[in-house]
Amino acid sequence: MGPVALRALAGLPEVGPGEDLARLIAGALGETPLAAGSVVAIAHTVVSKAEGAVVELGGVTPGPRALELGDEMDKDPRLIQVVLDESAEILRAERGVLICRTAHGFVCANAGVDLSNAGGAEPGEVAVLLPRDPDGSARTIRGALAAITGCSPAVMITDSFGRAWRHGQVDVAIGLAGLAPLDDWRGRADADGLELRATWLAVADAAAAASDLARAKDSREPVVVIDGLDRFVSAADGPGALSLLRPLAEDMFR
Amino acid sequence: MGPVALRALAGLPEVGPGEDLARLIAGALGETPLAAGSVVAIAHTVVSKAEGAVVELGGVTPGPRALELGDEMDKDPRLIQVVLDESAEILRAERGVLICRTAHGFVCANAGVDLSNAGGAEPGEVAVLLPRDPDGSARTIRGALAAITGCSPAVMITDSFGRAWRHGQVDVAIGLAGLAPLDDWRGRADADGLELRATWLAVADAAAAASDLARAKDSREPVVVIDGLDRFVSAADGPGALSLLRPLAEDMFR
Repeated sequence: MGPVALRALAGLPEVGPGEDLARLIAGALGETPLAAGSVVAIAHTVVSKAEGAVVELGGVTPGPRALELGDEMDKDPRLIQVVLDESAEILRAERGVLICRTAHGFVCANAGVDLSNAGGAEPGEVAVLLPRDPDGSARTIRGALAAITGCSPAVMITDSFGRAWRHGQVDVAIGLAGLAPLDDWRGRADADGLELRATWLAVADAAAAASDLARAKDSREPVVVIDGLDRFVSAADGPGALSLLRPLAEDMFR
Repeated sequence: MGPVALRALAGLPEVGPGEDLARLIAGALGETPLAAGSVVAIAHTVVSKAEGAVVELGGVTPGPRALELGDEMDKDPRLIQVVLDESAEILRAERGVLICRTAHGFVCANAGVDLSNAGGAEPGEVAVLLPRDPDGSARTIRGALAAITGCSPAVMITDSFGRAWRHGQVDVAIGLAGLAPLDDWRGRADADGLELRATWLAVADAAAAASDLARAKDSREPVVVIDGLDRFVSAADGPGALSLLRPLAEDMFR
């Protein structure tokens, strides 16, 4: 295998509603252009902000359940109302965290709602949601990047998710265009000629996790370019990140 | 942030019991030497084989529970006996997979026992276990690499684990020496001056996931060198990978 290289793009300005993200990314590429086999990994917050997937807490009236959970968890009930609005189901409410299944089907803390990096005049008063259709967002950005740069890199939108059995979070793919979500080696033979077991690689999630290593959390580096994954990049946009979700009937959490 | 680069080491020979892994790795480095801030990521199977953490299935007599589960799951009951022997607890037995908590505390499929790449005269007849003490193995390899190469890179031992809510596997860290398992930003301020939420990065797991992108599954490339993570590499061996495990009382799976 050839090497894999990751670099964060510096110099992206603050992103507001209606911003043309593809143009901002193309402008921040510097001297190293995108290749057709590049993967552009984007932290979802800038996508959400550009798409206006934000809620001003000042305009939120918490309902009875949000007030009750806010009291129990010592959290702003307006923020909890936003989390409830984003959730198809609340799986757990413990240790100050709501574990939710979002309308898209993602299982994550607080339905992916985040006060961090919300920008605006009064930081903390704006909740950033997940994009409405992250695979669609990735396809749109990919198309726009292709139009501007003349090559068609894969685009991945990421968020940091916790894990059931392990501390901390790693980034996973929530939106994909042109990157294989999974690489299925089940049933193929390994170097010994023996059947490989449990080898169904979540390529996109591994790439998402990797992308977070290339940026500092306190800096404005939401975009990381990954080179060396050409074998997983396709001209077609492919099945998207939703194909990474287990069907509810196979959810091992239940 | 500077760039992050990953390269798989080519030319490692088949690893057998008693093999000096550090010497093999040093010999496979080629023209690019290790730096003090490098991370050497090693797929656990070669560590287990070098340490003799393997079981010949021919010598295993399955007990009643292994016979019963083997019948239910249509699996070799000898292999299931090995999985049971490696498990402190069986959390689930469904869809042909045993979800186990190992003696170390890892929650994973089949207690990490693998027939893949087992090598030997009769492929498939040898089960490869997880190393007995993966943090200890990482420390030993780190010390030996330092003695041979004159610099002391971090060493990480990895395995591919499934996830509760998502398809496929990603590599996680099961042994660590000199690499921070977690980067704790909880309570620190982000670029807006706002408190960051849910920002407790599982650095080592992200690096493990990244390492798997730099090798092909069907090739003999168990070792990947990661450069650019210097800020997470320390002279001290640090707390190890066991510190990534949630205490049982906080296990969200239960």
